Amino acid sequence: MTSPLRVVALLFPGCTQLDLTGPAQVFARLPGAQVDLAWRDTEPVATDCGWSIVPTTTLADAPPADVLFVPGGDGTFDLLEDEDVLAFLRRQAAGARWVTSVCTGSFLLAAAGLLDGYRATTHWASLPLLAELGAEPVAERVVVDRNRVTGAGVTSGIDFALVLAARDLGDDVARRLQLMLEYDPRPPFDAGSPATADPAEVAAIRSAVREARLGRVQAAAAAGTRRVVVAPFGAT
Amino acid sequence: MTSPLRVVALLFPGCTQLDLTGPAQVFARLPGAQVDLAWRDTEPVATDCGWSIVPTTTLADAPPADVLFVPGGDGTFDLLEDEDVLAFLRRQAAGARWVTSVCTGSFLLAAAGLLDGYRATTHWASLPLLAELGAEPVAERVVVDRNRVTGAGVTSGIDFALVLAARDLGDDVARRLQLMLEYDPRPPFDAGSPATADPAEVAAIRSAVREARLGRVQAAAAAGTRRVVVAPFGAT
Repeated sequence: MTSPLRVVALLFPGCTQLDLTGPAQVFARLPGAQVDLAWRDTEPVATDCGWSIVPTTTLADAPPADVLFVPGGDGTFDLLEDEDVLAFLRRQAAGARWVTSVCTGSFLLAAAGLLDGYRATTHWASLPLLAELGAEPVAERVVVDRNRVTGAGVTSGIDFALVLAARDLGDDVARRLQLMLEYDPRPPFDAGSPATADPAEVAAIRSAVREARLGRVQAAAAAGTRRVVVAPFGAT
Repeated sequence: MTSPLRVVALLFPGCTQLDLTGPAQVFARLPGAQVDLAWRDTEPVATDCGWSIVPTTTLADAPPADVLFVPGGDGTFDLLEDEDVLAFLRRQAAGARWVTSVCTGSFLLAAAGLLDGYRATTHWASLPLLAELGAEPVAERVVVDRNRVTGAGVTSGIDFALVLAARDLGDDVARRLQLMLEYDPRPPFDAGSPATADPAEVAAIRSAVREARLGRVQAAAAAGTRRVVVAPFGAT
């Protein structure tokens, strides 16, 4: 508990900010944790909510992560063939203890080839598309497969981060943090899962998401960028 | 649903960022919503997690809010006698449909005199202190008393914002948003409430919080700043 826990999160334009800020709140309060937010440069990055978050480091300068974390959002799908981002993810993943995402962040991990043959999850509306990039989609809130830990849509990030905290630092640490964050949820409706929603509405949303995103996902799959292997830190 | 819903949130140094970013994610996706983050100037503001969020406006220039929202955090207690902040809160509250907070943000509302005689909540560890500033502390996750809506600690902000959305825009809007945010929580432990935690641990945390904060809360109460009345927008 006294050695630093280095978390490096990807911050990018159009990320769903709660995908990032929910887990970041959990990680920041772990004993010895250091949380970095990495992007191309350290200018403020506009989130899906309009306002901006300031990166703490760059893709090039980020320290080697113990936990590599990728949030989701519409912006994900603009980066599926971005060589700088994919190389950053592969380089960090090669040395990380945990390779993780929330929401559609798993599409970026998958595009980098980091979920090939792994069970993984994502936002329910995008889940059927995840197989296009080599992952095995699983409709669960948090999925742990070896050192890959993926969370479902947006608010699942809090559950995801507490599960990861418990795995890495033990149940007592995670339990105490849950108390300090007063995480005793009382959703006002039984409406947060497609399993309990109106089937016609679920189908309509899935169809709209597929139409908006399938082209870019298939283009990334066809480009074959996820099969490129790069050297980890320190290798030449 | 087509008229704009103007949310103005106070952003300040040392705010617990999830107090702000959880509700902000909900508010930003409401039909016609415009979310502003206000502080003294528009330079990046350091949150409790180390990294910074950029204000969209200033205390002086913020538009009149339909929803005035104050997050919490350690930084709250540095502002209890800050005349600029208290005047901003009173001016906005005078015209707002909803006057709201999450976590220890309720101490700022109370210091401004905006919770005198109102039932309100805050983070469980600080709840016994809230009465010092004229509010009636209530140990519930979300408390609605007339147009004051307060949430408990940190993660309660998501429940709070969905409850507020339902009140303002109807259950169907809130229910659909809950589905899109996949808010179907699965906390890993039954540990998020003082009611289920170890009583000795709860007492120790309450005692430490009281020691750290009671002096500043009592000083603000003695200063009597919460009894000052200022003119609302447009009055001279």
